[in-house]
Amino acid sequence: MVTVLGIDPGTAVTGYGVVSRDEQGRVTLLECGVIRTSSSQPLPDRIREIFQGIEEVIERLHPTAVAVEDVFQGKNVRSALTLGHARGAILLAAALRDLAIAEYSPREIKSAVVGTGGATKDQVGYMVQKHLRLREPPTPADAADGVAAALCHCFVSTSPAF
Amino acid sequence: MVTVLGIDPGTAVTGYGVVSRDEQGRVTLLECGVIRTSSSQPLPDRIREIFQGIEEVIERLHPTAVAVEDVFQGKNVRSALTLGHARGAILLAAALRDLAIAEYSPREIKSAVVGTGGATKDQVGYMVQKHLRLREPPTPADAADGVAAALCHCFVSTSPAF
Repeated sequence: MVTVLGIDPGTAVTGYGVVSRDEQGRVTLLECGVIRTSSSQPLPDRIREIFQGIEEVIERLHPTAVAVEDVFQGKNVRSALTLGHARGAILLAAALRDLAIAEYSPREIKSAVVGTGGATKDQVGYMVQKHLRLREPPTPADAADGVAAALCHCFVSTSPAF
Repeated sequence: MVTVLGIDPGTAVTGYGVVSRDEQGRVTLLECGVIRTSSSQPLPDRIREIFQGIEEVIERLHPTAVAVEDVFQGKNVRSALTLGHARGAILLAAALRDLAIAEYSPREIKSAVVGTGGATKDQVGYMVQKHLRLREPPTPADAADGVAAALCHCFVSTSPAF
């Protein structure tokens, strides 16, 4: 049994999902959600909230690996820099606990979860629902993206942790 | 008396300088240096080293404020994203200790320290040396840039901490 924390990083909204995989390869959703920060707060306070939010999930659910979405397409330099702050805080929270960390591009995640790298958000939500036997897709979409990152790691990882 | 930790963030080399300012406005260099990380290491490990390096300086020298250089000019999207990770770790180290945090552009720092926003690296090093009554400019240049950020905060800050 392994437990993977998947994260879709964002300064305003960071989505996450925690998925366990048993020895038969069956995946189960333990929890998903979002960490929201307000644009009216100073950037260091927002980064701290993201860091502490991820810390809290790690301490509560004890994932063995963390899968982080690696996004930079279509961003301008300023928004990439800001996003980097959020990703830095997330990678740090995982690194300080010596967790295995994997980074996946949006295309890799969609390929693993939906079967095509060009899948829409709705398709991702639908396939996340199917894989995890949920009544409906996780909402908001950022939470579903975090779950998709975790599922991707469950499906493609060949790391020793599995 | 206030003590300012100035930081020039970088994933490969983060420069820092710690400057105290007394009630007469006299500034004194307490320490400067660099935190280097290797590009052969995974990014999360590099971020952790930067975070722990800054933590160590904070715990040892007890700055009351942190001044961080805000750089994104001339960067491409990928390098801005990577730099953001380092800045995120640095801002987090300061925010977790509830330190006052100020961000200054390279132009603001050069204006405050040299008198012109277009100053060269050599001019910055020279004026850092003069302000702090040093025998020579701090080396490497990244350390001098960290010291310059701290000096800038000493010279321009009107925050209640002063």
